Amino acid sequence: MSHEIRGLNEECGVFGVFGEKDASRLTYFGLHALQHRGQEGAGIVSSDGEHLHQYRNRGLLAEVFQNLDDLKRLTGQAAIGHVRYGTSGTNSLANIQPFLFRFYDGDVGLAHNGNLTNAVTLRRQLEVQGAVFQSTSDTEMLIHLIRKKQGMDFLDALKVSLNETKGGFAFLLLRKDALYAALDPNGFRPLVIGQTKSGGYIVASETCALDAVGAKFVRDVLPGELIIIDKDGLHIDHYTTQTKLAVCSMEYIYFARPDSIIHGVTVHNARKRMGGILAQEQPAPADADMVIGVPNSSLSAASGYAEATGLPYEMGLIKNQYIARTFIQPTQALREQGVKMKLSAVRGVVEGKSVVIVDDSIVRGTTSIQLVKMLKEAGAKEVHMRIASPPFRYPHFYGIDVSDRSQLMAAKHSVVEMQKLIGVESLGFLSVSGLIKAIDLPMGQDKENGGLTVAYFNGKYPTPLYDYEEDYLQSFEEIPDRKD
Amino acid sequence: MSHEIRGLNEECGVFGVFGEKDASRLTYFGLHALQHRGQEGAGIVSSDGEHLHQYRNRGLLAEVFQNLDDLKRLTGQAAIGHVRYGTSGTNSLANIQPFLFRFYDGDVGLAHNGNLTNAVTLRRQLEVQGAVFQSTSDTEMLIHLIRKKQGMDFLDALKVSLNETKGGFAFLLLRKDALYAALDPNGFRPLVIGQTKSGGYIVASETCALDAVGAKFVRDVLPGELIIIDKDGLHIDHYTTQTKLAVCSMEYIYFARPDSIIHGVTVHNARKRMGGILAQEQPAPADADMVIGVPNSSLSAASGYAEATGLPYEMGLIKNQYIARTFIQPTQALREQGVKMKLSAVRGVVEGKSVVIVDDSIVRGTTSIQLVKMLKEAGAKEVHMRIASPPFRYPHFYGIDVSDRSQLMAAKHSVVEMQKLIGVESLGFLSVSGLIKAIDLPMGQDKENGGLTVAYFNGKYPTPLYDYEEDYLQSFEEIPDRKD
Amino acid sequence: MSHEIRGLNEECGVFGVFGEKDASRLTYFGLHALQHRGQEGAGIVSSDGEHLHQYRNRGLLAEVFQNLDDLKRLTGQAAIGHVRYGTSGTNSLANIQPFLFRFYDGDVGLAHNGNLTNAVTLRRQLEVQGAVFQSTSDTEMLIHLIRKKQGMDFLDALKVSLNETKGGFAFLLLRKDALYAALDPNGFRPLVIGQTKSGGYIVASETCALDAVGAKFVRDVLPGELIIIDKDGLHIDHYTTQTKLAVCSMEYIYFARPDSIIHGVTVHNARKRMGGILAQEQPAPADADMVIGVPNSSLSAASGYAEATGLPYEMGLIKNQYIARTFIQPTQALREQGVKMKLSAVRGVVEGKSVVIVDDSIVRGTTSIQLVKMLKEAGAKEVHMRIASPPFRYPHFYGIDVSDRSQLMAAKHSVVEMQKLIGVESLGFLSVSGLIKAIDLPMGQDKENGGLTVAYFNGKYPTPLYDYEEDYLQSFEEIPDRKD
Amino acid sequence: MSHEIRGLNEECGVFGVFGEKDASRLTYFGLHALQHRGQEGAGIVSSDGEHLHQYRNRGLLAEVFQNLDDLKRLTGQAAIGHVRYGTSGTNSLANIQPFLFRFYDGDVGLAHNGNLTNAVTLRRQLEVQGAVFQSTSDTEMLIHLIRKKQGMDFLDALKVSLNETKGGFAFLLLRKDALYAALDPNGFRPLVIGQTKSGGYIVASETCALDAVGAKFVRDVLPGELIIIDKDGLHIDHYTTQTKLAVCSMEYIYFARPDSIIHGVTVHNARKRMGGILAQEQPAPADADMVIGVPNSSLSAASGYAEATGLPYEMGLIKNQYIARTFIQPTQALREQGVKMKLSAVRGVVEGKSVVIVDDSIVRGTTSIQLVKMLKEAGAKEVHMRIASPPFRYPHFYGIDVSDRSQLMAAKHSVVEMQKLIGVESLGFLSVSGLIKAIDLPMGQDKENGGLTVAYFNGKYPTPLYDYEEDYLQSFEEIPDRKD
Repeated sequence: MSHEIRGLNEECGVFGVFGEKDASRLTYFGLHALQHRGQEGAGIVSSDGEHLHQYRNRGLLAEVFQNLDDLKRLTGQAAIGHVRYGTSGTNSLANIQPFLFRFYDGDVGLAHNGNLTNAVTLRRQLEVQGAVFQSTSDTEMLIHLIRKKQGMDFLDALKVSLNETKGGFAFLLLRKDALYAALDPNGFRPLVIGQTKSGGYIVASETCALDAVGAKFVRDVLPGELIIIDKDGLHIDHYTTQTKLAVCSMEYIYFARPDSIIHGVTVHNARKRMGGILAQEQPAPADADMVIGVPNSSLSAASGYAEATGLPYEMGLIKNQYIARTFIQPTQALREQGVKMKLSAVRGVVEGKSVVIVDDSIVRGTTSIQLVKMLKEAGAKEVHMRIASPPFRYPHFYGIDVSDRSQLMAAKHSVVEMQKLIGVESLGFLSVSGLIKAIDLPMGQDKENGGLTVAYFNGKYPTPLYDYEEDYLQSFEEIPDRKD
Repeated sequence: MSHEIRGLNEECGVFGVFGEKDASRLTYFGLHALQHRGQEGAGIVSSDGEHLHQYRNRGLLAEVFQNLDDLKRLTGQAAIGHVRYGTSGTNSLANIQPFLFRFYDGDVGLAHNGNLTNAVTLRRQLEVQGAVFQSTSDTEMLIHLIRKKQGMDFLDALKVSLNETKGGFAFLLLRKDALYAALDPNGFRPLVIGQTKSGGYIVASETCALDAVGAKFVRDVLPGELIIIDKDGLHIDHYTTQTKLAVCSMEYIYFARPDSIIHGVTVHNARKRMGGILAQEQPAPADADMVIGVPNSSLSAASGYAEATGLPYEMGLIKNQYIARTFIQPTQALREQGVKMKLSAVRGVVEGKSVVIVDDSIVRGTTSIQLVKMLKEAGAKEVHMRIASPPFRYPHFYGIDVSDRSQLMAAKHSVVEMQKLIGVESLGFLSVSGLIKAIDLPMGQDKENGGLTVAYFNGKYPTPLYDYEEDYLQSFEEIPDRKD
Repeated sequence: MSHEIRGLNEECGVFGVFGEKDASRLTYFGLHALQHRGQEGAGIVSSDGEHLHQYRNRGLLAEVFQNLDDLKRLTGQAAIGHVRYGTSGTNSLANIQPFLFRFYDGDVGLAHNGNLTNAVTLRRQLEVQGAVFQSTSDTEMLIHLIRKKQGMDFLDALKVSLNETKGGFAFLLLRKDALYAALDPNGFRPLVIGQTKSGGYIVASETCALDAVGAKFVRDVLPGELIIIDKDGLHIDHYTTQTKLAVCSMEYIYFARPDSIIHGVTVHNARKRMGGILAQEQPAPADADMVIGVPNSSLSAASGYAEATGLPYEMGLIKNQYIARTFIQPTQALREQGVKMKLSAVRGVVEGKSVVIVDDSIVRGTTSIQLVKMLKEAGAKEVHMRIASPPFRYPHFYGIDVSDRSQLMAAKHSVVEMQKLIGVESLGFLSVSGLIKAIDLPMGQDKENGGLTVAYFNGKYPTPLYDYEEDYLQSFEEIPDRKD
Repeated sequence: MSHEIRGLNEECGVFGVFGEKDASRLTYFGLHALQHRGQEGAGIVSSDGEHLHQYRNRGLLAEVFQNLDDLKRLTGQAAIGHVRYGTSGTNSLANIQPFLFRFYDGDVGLAHNGNLTNAVTLRRQLEVQGAVFQSTSDTEMLIHLIRKKQGMDFLDALKVSLNETKGGFAFLLLRKDALYAALDPNGFRPLVIGQTKSGGYIVASETCALDAVGAKFVRDVLPGELIIIDKDGLHIDHYTTQTKLAVCSMEYIYFARPDSIIHGVTVHNARKRMGGILAQEQPAPADADMVIGVPNSSLSAASGYAEATGLPYEMGLIKNQYIARTFIQPTQALREQGVKMKLSAVRGVVEGKSVVIVDDSIVRGTTSIQLVKMLKEAGAKEVHMRIASPPFRYPHFYGIDVSDRSQLMAAKHSVVEMQKLIGVESLGFLSVSGLIKAIDLPMGQDKENGGLTVAYFNGKYPTPLYDYEEDYLQSFEEIPDRKD
């Protein structure tokens, strides 16, 4: 399913570079490759060795930096950048990253991908001590924690502070003479190190950003690590040894770009395997004529499903390439006429056919209902839906905005009920074990859940939930756990 | 290949509606589905039964109509709209369509997809008679021709004028109480009639625009026809019977959206068959590991090629979804670093593999060179290129901006030379007869070239070239015809 | 009264230069000095000796040329520019001048200040001959007339065409190698010639534009003259000798900038004399404490009135300097609270005082009513109003948008009635003979009405009204002529 | 001299309202009347009784609120607003006020007009305690001081904090259920209380803002007072009794709008008296023909000077009303041509005359030099300059950006030297005692300097300078004090 049209929203991409001429322009192109991780805002903070410079705004990267001058002012050989997804209401300019904090003893830039599970508690504690926050973002917490540790040197203060924050996080910090990168103890979010042809270092959310700027992949950042890059080069340190790998499985299922490689696994290949295993677990009906995928994020899984079943892989849905923000909405009357702006069914392909449609996941289910309606209107005789991930039943607390179980179709309904609601002839999901097997994380061989976080599917979170614990338990009173 | 990144540029989409509440809003959504036909400008002219209203501007449709008020002012139950591709320099606001002409005896709106081959001659003749043109566009010619016929009624004047214009054209005209649509005698451009659920009529460049607004397909407009829609419904008339079907084959190869159906042929299916026949004519090497397509326009042909060869169809290239206009360009230094904004090779797929890449066409060849470089840098062992259309050797005069043979790689080089220039292990093209067979136009069975224009491949134009004749002949002195 | 807040709107300023490096930039600064003549749109057309270049848009000059690049593209040593006032509804981009017309035999730029009284008739005649107009502006007529004269050389065609147009006009035309300027046979509008320090020539609506760019005043353009400036310098020709000087008196009363000199008379000085003569004709009451003017256009007359009466000249009203376009309007409730955005009464000056307020004219009367209310709310004991021009009773057809008598307060009401409606203790107007005496045009000594058009005050138009004749007569049936 | 063209820049206007429907819209119109106090940015924070809402941006008020929706979102019956002047480099969005701080125990909005003299010291102290600042503005200090006082209730914490801040300040604070206003112990800045017709209360920088929204003047806020407005009405409290009235004399000389009344004195009247006393102290030469003022801020003083001397008061300079931000600058060549965009001399008035020009002050002197050049080029025989304030010799630390003595013409040069540099036949300044006498502050009768701050003229600051002390003393080493 395309990034624009779903209920499940990814959160943020980060990119940092040190020791490279034109650092902010390089960051611009790196962020461009990460734009799928966030479309609500973007920004860059650069260091010229003495001062830090910032530019950020709402919108897509290309909208934020419409004016080359805004980029040119971000001088220096080091920079960090951020693309942001923000839920409505929190999308004020003050929340757009990277943040830039100015202190009498030196400026600090800060960019973050993730979600702190003890942010509410920490913020309250800090406010009671007199802290004044400038955003509603979790991210700002880190700088307050660091600054509270007066007397400690910056690196020590940073390490202690990282131990105080809980949840899933990938932080980049920029000071005038160094770039810092830190990953949470479970490695929920991907974060990789690269090196440019001229010897500068890069830290980025995904390898596709390294490819985009012609940088060589060095290695993934590991859970609990703290990377320091300065004029002496790359230093790999750590702030904790209490780590347990639990990469967010949604990165493989939906978030990451198919060409990215996370912990040794190419995302496209993982998705194709998900489709293949799904075909074994939930075979196509005997009379199926073809397999189609939902562009763009489900195409890999759909081709894997087709290959495994031997059915033709067809283009039964196409996505309009021009779905940029539009302020014109169809009226109710037009909606009934059938105005569709994003996806179209290809009548010439599906008419009179029995179709297996493969999607990567079902969150709220509203898009699935529309897709099926569209296919049937285009003449599809039967529609069988196969989902290349398990039913999404539990909230996601580490960097996605689905923290309310009541929004999750699979939390409220059995698969049989979902099949009826969506209006398909059959519906099948990948199993949790199938998912783990498809991703096949080399580092996760001997780890629980294969080194992945699959809590959204089985409710077993790898860490305490802190601030969310109570909400979480509460949600089960309202919507009892149902498995079928 | 994606519409944004090629040298061969399509020209314009048109959409008209009569007898429908909220006509301009419906037109907006219809144009949205036609956006792939032109991204440089857009506009709508509506009729409220008394007066015509216009709004147009440079940019994508969503940029032009950023402000709902601009659409709301276009009141009435009839409207015509246009999306425009414009070559640089001619892209002034005065050239953005639909045009609106105000006369003491009634306003006329005008939108056009095509290219008149006798425009220069006609304009000069008209100017000598005192005509003052407001644009540099061919399109304006028609209204001057009509207005010169004082004394004749509008319909007669229109018919005579249509006989005076030569080339490929699909015109929409709007008057306060009627919508007119006319197609050239060869039917170069697609143009279809649809009907909305509430009984209004639509004329549009492609059926995908009918689907987008939930309208039912009625029939294709035929060469030489003049369609009139007014309060009494749909009237099918004609301005000439001297017709000879010769649909532009590039519509099937590259221009049209895969879900559109042109003269009974679904574009995706035609492309898939092109891939299939290409596989017979230009088989894959024995050691090939996979087939990949260039997103998005070559994916259909690539899947056809894969299916015919039995090779796996893989996602070896992905397209960045966020390639909206950017004003930030990589510096030369960054370009050498490898900054790529639009397409990326998927290393995890192609590394160490022998790859067959299928593209829809080669025009200038610059993109092909880059694509191959990208695949090799991502580790592809061998790259074999297959093109799902014949070598593009002759200029296109009916609505595309390639009128200069010297820009065409295949006009200057043999296939063997092209293979070396592009840097592939092998290169093969579809034959002209294969193309005709793949499209398999039902109406074209007994027609020359199967009812298609394939002049770009074989130099045989279905009509005299008028103003272009001399340029055309000249070009062969500079670049002798080479066939190999 | 300030230009922004009245009912009577001026129309257009023109500026042309030939033989000067950076011609378009010079034109920009010349137009800046003429901005008071039109705020709805602006544009420049330049000639580089071969081609003409155009940029124009809606808004103030500084808004239109926000981007230096738009000005830089207007290369060459000759340019014409225009600032436009447009009545609502006619303010489409197509009407923004200068126009640029492209012909096979050379481009023509065209800018105009004035109003043609036979435009409707001419347009109809031309349309019947097949002409297609691109704007709803009078101005475009001239180029059609010229182009109809195929066979004649440009200069002859221009002269004949100028004789075919009736009304008040000041035209600038630019061709690749010459600049032309023509004034109507009555010289309704001001138009002056200047010379830059480096020897280039300028033609502009007012001398203030010459001062603004450091150019020396050469002489006024005279009625019926046709000025040609080319590489051989300045040529003064004429297209008619049937001339009769009748300068628009509103230029002196209200339109022109106070520092401009029109036909030898400094506007500020004329206004001051209007105030002086007004004091003799309509003396201040015995108990008056002070004279105040309405900023900015009435300050000259008010100071003349104060000087003649010996009363103190005070700042009883001030104008907010920041009244740029605002899209936020007071709600009705706030309006009742008293929200005033443009003018404020100075309580500390007028409280408890008997005030004589001098204004330049009363058109619709709405502003006068508000002003008096404001002064009384600020504590003024008595308000006596003196108007430094005669009652405005007849429509203005030569370049102002008041062509409807029913909008004119003085057409519908006697002075006594007006006094009551406005709510002042007394009201007095300057006489027509006082106005003529105050302006004291040297060239007008032996001419009817002193060489001025005063038709708005006495109904005697210096020329036939052509297209307006019928409307004019009709208006007297609705509102009988009343003089008191 | 006009606000746009001088070296001496005012700082900020504030407006707050409580208990009024449409509070943010009322604030918009109030700020509009205060726009002369700051043009670099504007914003409004409103309270709907539960939550606070903010909108702010760079630019003039009308630019910031181009979109009515941005204002409509600021719901509620209480609001504070701010217009800001910012020195270049500090004009980032983060510095635009009002600030909005969100805390677990309630939001706080903050707007400020003034300058804290111990801001650097306080900020460093707070940062050492772990504080993180979001702006580079002094203003933010107050909220950090308040929040440090955990355990104290808000009002007590505010009072203690106000005692910790030094300098000149007028603060507005908004909480969900109350509006607070505080003035520094010297009352440097004007701040007044008003009441709307429907009973709501207003606090604003100047009375002109009350007039603009139809509110009744209640009284001036006095030094050391703390005003609280909540659902129970208006409460007047104080945070210190250690007060000493010392109103900034520049408010009367130049900053404030002429129609405002500060501590009982109408600004226009004070300026007129400055002109009158100046005429006694520095009479016009015997052969002077006229007095002219520099529009707009010197017109009051000039008319006072003219009245006292009996010389005619003439309009020798006019100001272009359209000097909105322009991005087009004259080239050096054009500058030499004489391109002038803001002020013009009226040749018809000054030619051949001996002119006395009255200006309100001389700061850097650059504008004076240009003005005189302009008058002489327009033909003035002699130019005599009279300044309606004393020589500006010492920096201003309480809210203006002139803190560097080296920029002050009168700090570096004697009056005789200035006369030569400016190029006038004579030059004279008002004395400090003349200034005090002209303003004639009722509350200042028995106070030092008549209750005014005149330190810019005599170097005697009413308070210690704190952070500026050292810079101040340093400046005398570089530029020794000169009095003549």
